[in-house]
Amino acid sequence: MTTSSFGPSYVRAIAPYVAGKPISEVAREFGLDEARIVKLASNENPLGMPESAKTAMAQAASELSRYPDANAFELKAALSAHYDVPADWITLGNGSNDILELAAHAFVEKSQSVIYAQYSFAVYALATQGLGARAIVVPAVGYGHDLDAMLAAITDDTRLVFVANPNNPTGTFIDGATIEAFLAKVPRSVVVVLDEAYTEYLAADKRYDSIAWVRRYPNLLVSRTFSKAFGLAGLRVGFAIAQPELTDLMNRLRQPFNVNTLAQAAAVAALNDKRFLQKSAELNAQGYRRLTEAFDKLGLEYVPSYGNFVLVRVGHDDAAGNRVNLELLKQGVIVRPVGSYGLPQWLRVTIGLPEENEAFIAALEKTLATA
Amino acid sequence: MTTSSFGPSYVRAIAPYVAGKPISEVAREFGLDEARIVKLASNENPLGMPESAKTAMAQAASELSRYPDANAFELKAALSAHYDVPADWITLGNGSNDILELAAHAFVEKSQSVIYAQYSFAVYALATQGLGARAIVVPAVGYGHDLDAMLAAITDDTRLVFVANPNNPTGTFIDGATIEAFLAKVPRSVVVVLDEAYTEYLAADKRYDSIAWVRRYPNLLVSRTFSKAFGLAGLRVGFAIAQPELTDLMNRLRQPFNVNTLAQAAAVAALNDKRFLQKSAELNAQGYRRLTEAFDKLGLEYVPSYGNFVLVRVGHDDAAGNRVNLELLKQGVIVRPVGSYGLPQWLRVTIGLPEENEAFIAALEKTLATA
Repeated sequence: MTTSSFGPSYVRAIAPYVAGKPISEVAREFGLDEARIVKLASNENPLGMPESAKTAMAQAASELSRYPDANAFELKAALSAHYDVPADWITLGNGSNDILELAAHAFVEKSQSVIYAQYSFAVYALATQGLGARAIVVPAVGYGHDLDAMLAAITDDTRLVFVANPNNPTGTFIDGATIEAFLAKVPRSVVVVLDEAYTEYLAADKRYDSIAWVRRYPNLLVSRTFSKAFGLAGLRVGFAIAQPELTDLMNRLRQPFNVNTLAQAAAVAALNDKRFLQKSAELNAQGYRRLTEAFDKLGLEYVPSYGNFVLVRVGHDDAAGNRVNLELLKQGVIVRPVGSYGLPQWLRVTIGLPEENEAFIAALEKTLATA
Repeated sequence: MTTSSFGPSYVRAIAPYVAGKPISEVAREFGLDEARIVKLASNENPLGMPESAKTAMAQAASELSRYPDANAFELKAALSAHYDVPADWITLGNGSNDILELAAHAFVEKSQSVIYAQYSFAVYALATQGLGARAIVVPAVGYGHDLDAMLAAITDDTRLVFVANPNNPTGTFIDGATIEAFLAKVPRSVVVVLDEAYTEYLAADKRYDSIAWVRRYPNLLVSRTFSKAFGLAGLRVGFAIAQPELTDLMNRLRQPFNVNTLAQAAAVAALNDKRFLQKSAELNAQGYRRLTEAFDKLGLEYVPSYGNFVLVRVGHDDAAGNRVNLELLKQGVIVRPVGSYGLPQWLRVTIGLPEENEAFIAALEKTLATA
């Protein structure tokens, strides 16, 4: 065995996740002033972090030489009260990325299969590959999940199905009744991870009660995050709600100090900051209208979105996404190319503050006019 | 398949890590005032967090709704300069726990074997079990690693050997020349993870240059943490230094945002805060002398320690550790029982501030006098 063959073949085959470019990196690469760069690349909350969470974090900052509470007593108590589930139904993660990885690791082993949709979140593929498990990627319909086809794709060795609602990077949404009908048909031996990272952006008439389903389906795990509407992406905290048969296994694999002290404190505050959440959702709805009006005016196809981002087609050749992205970068606007998702003609744009949206629209118009 | 058999059998067999009790939990359980509780249970830095790191963290706190820099440009640049290695030789972790898990996951697959010493850090066992890999636990000699026996234990399917130096929870130390001789004999197909979480506490005459070994041995990975001498346990940041053949594989599995924004900023500052590190090491050496004098006076056996903690035998029956621990808890002193390590007659005590050490000694004397 030579040194070039360290590690399992399935690990060597993984292509690492490519994150959105941070502002500092774009400033370095393109010689731009950081203060003038607009970042609409990672579906972050443009309002920043809630003041309530800042205060909570400042209070927790005196104890940072201590390890975090491995059992996160306060945060679990807050989540337990908020979602009306026992504390042992909750698993905390270092962002929901950690939840998704833990679920795959806890429920799937090498050579078993995992199902997810084409054009769904990259971490589903990464988590599957990292286990040497087999991915069954079900073709999308209208850039969204085809739940009937996903159900039909389940085989004897399927242990996990990832469903994202709304889906990232396409923004598609499945109504509650359709998901519930799907859950009723999935074999009880197959775990369904319902990834609801963007659920706080849903309009009132689109909401459904997935926690009630967790009470009925012992094979359902709902994944949520504090990185989007709650505004805590930089602190890293996500959580899962499921019955103890599932959470118990995840807890055996969870790194005991996976959620840091400040994230725990800030999440307790953000969870109950209804005003911030409402303001975030309103700003997002308003920005969505503005961006899609602009796309309509430019004659650009986009996928109707239920998240805090829009997938827009910026050309009809497979170099379009990267080409337009580069021109936007030169103008100090960071969005997300999605060629790695098999969408090379598209860009994913996070809905920002009004002035950020305008800067993006202006840069896009300029780019398309000169193309 | 019933719902009670979700997940691989090797996951179901794991006993989760039991963390040191946090101060708030002991206060709740024993009805004590948090301010009067002394925690010497988790090998944290009793000086708290460096002021330099607090300042850096405060400056980074304005951007917490943004995702962390997935490539950690600034922190990798600082580590690269400090340890004189290229940035791509560095892997960052959510604490060194994350590094240890990533290494196991990247280099070992199900049914292959991993070697570690009896009485070494619990995460080696957890990381091995989590993969369904086979643990070869090599009996300790004098509570420390028997490197000759570990070498002899290597089999065709061995992919990883964990070596902790100093070792936790026993505090034992292996001199540099002995480790180097061991590295020279390990087959190049077997990765050696040299866990140096406590290396900053070593006296000048004990130090050795493990980074120079990384340059010579493509199968060596050195793991370090900011949770001990650097005082950042609550923020979660650790790192590994190894050649790119190894770091590249770990990077394929690493969660892209595994190290939060504040941890990255604080670690850059702490790394170069020589005065804080020196003060920490001096305080530790002084506390070590005080604790071991007290143990000598009480006629208690202890293992000579090179870390920021001491393993002390508090009785000669297998209930002694838990019994003495309970009496200490009632007096508001939290130390670590190590029955789960197969050391039920012992307690591991972190070296604290002078007044914390005195509180522990007084509580221990009282407990033993009435036993």
